[in-house]
Amino acid sequence: MKPLAVVLVSGGMDSCVTAAVASGEFRLCLLHIRYGQRTETRELDSFRRIAESLKPEKQLVLTFDYLSLIGGSSLTDRNLSVPSSEQESTHIPSTYVPFRNAGFLSAAVSWAEVLEAKAVFIGAVSQDFPGYPDCRENFFTAFQEVVNEGTKPGSNLSVRVPLLHMKKDEIVRLGISLGAPLQHTWSCYRSEDFACGTCASCVLRLQGFMKAGVADPIPYQKQPLMAGS
Amino acid sequence: MKPLAVVLVSGGMDSCVTAAVASGEFRLCLLHIRYGQRTETRELDSFRRIAESLKPEKQLVLTFDYLSLIGGSSLTDRNLSVPSSEQESTHIPSTYVPFRNAGFLSAAVSWAEVLEAKAVFIGAVSQDFPGYPDCRENFFTAFQEVVNEGTKPGSNLSVRVPLLHMKKDEIVRLGISLGAPLQHTWSCYRSEDFACGTCASCVLRLQGFMKAGVADPIPYQKQPLMAGS
Repeated sequence: MKPLAVVLVSGGMDSCVTAAVASGEFRLCLLHIRYGQRTETRELDSFRRIAESLKPEKQLVLTFDYLSLIGGSSLTDRNLSVPSSEQESTHIPSTYVPFRNAGFLSAAVSWAEVLEAKAVFIGAVSQDFPGYPDCRENFFTAFQEVVNEGTKPGSNLSVRVPLLHMKKDEIVRLGISLGAPLQHTWSCYRSEDFACGTCASCVLRLQGFMKAGVADPIPYQKQPLMAGS
Repeated sequence: MKPLAVVLVSGGMDSCVTAAVASGEFRLCLLHIRYGQRTETRELDSFRRIAESLKPEKQLVLTFDYLSLIGGSSLTDRNLSVPSSEQESTHIPSTYVPFRNAGFLSAAVSWAEVLEAKAVFIGAVSQDFPGYPDCRENFFTAFQEVVNEGTKPGSNLSVRVPLLHMKKDEIVRLGISLGAPLQHTWSCYRSEDFACGTCASCVLRLQGFMKAGVADPIPYQKQPLMAGS
């Protein structure tokens, strides 16, 4: 029987494809974390549909209140607005949620330790937001060391980031080849009914589908990239 | 003006003394995390009293639901009983909460990053429970590297564990010398009104006070060590 793996599934395309990758080697335990982000209702709905499609061994939905309580990000603070793609600074965008991935990985590792799972997967992609410090290879390498030191001897838990160095069009193609349910995913930072098409996350996604030569199956308010292409 | 530091304060003696140590160099931002542990009401009460005494710049109380949802520890799972001190295995006791300190430090670092604080303090003591993997020096050293990699450039946040290699009687003496409000602290794993006096945490604490030659100011159901000494 395949070993278990905990996969962080936000409801977005990258984590959905990551789960599809993980399923080749592991039985899935899908973990979704609500953290007060603008689109959390839509993302939870996506998570539920993705889980229905991937039929995991277990699924767990958690609520983290602290990321919205501490503020500091336009994703969790309603007093800040989410910039359009072209307004994003190349440094650290306002959508960066401070040290979020460390909290998410910590919860995933805690659960994995109890389940005696052998891996924890996260769908981070370093090229998308090179300004996010907690999306870089060095961060995940360092986190693996924390896991080695901070879990029970013999846990042998590996931190896997299979899409880390992939481009969005490669991710679209990989997802399609694996039969990942991309139609259920949600990537927009701003809206929950129709994706805005203009925030950095929408633009990256649309570019990926365009380069892959495939239509994005989710509904958009406007698709400036597609219209202009 | 002194820089800010986030200090994790559970309500126990060690974190209270840690906060007193931190206050020599930093303005305090005290962080308490409720995680479904048996004595969380009493610990929150202790936190409030400690905060009243230490007069921090800021204080924040968070709730983590995941540690009790995933189970695996006698501190959070009411179906398991907390063993007495002499029943504790020398390996990994049932009171170990899987990878808990990584989750706590992650939240503390997220807050510190928003506040532009320069340090995060945790009151871990490695000798108390040598079986807890997330209380060892190597774990904290590895976590410092994750912080260096995963926070904004220029954050320069240091992870401080000032009591890590201290014995309990040294901690009692240090706390008294710094005027730490030990009378408000709570260490018992089992009870909220009178400390049980027999769980591993009570026994360690009582031994510390006994060796320091000082009476423990909190109420106990029984104090086998004191009675027999």
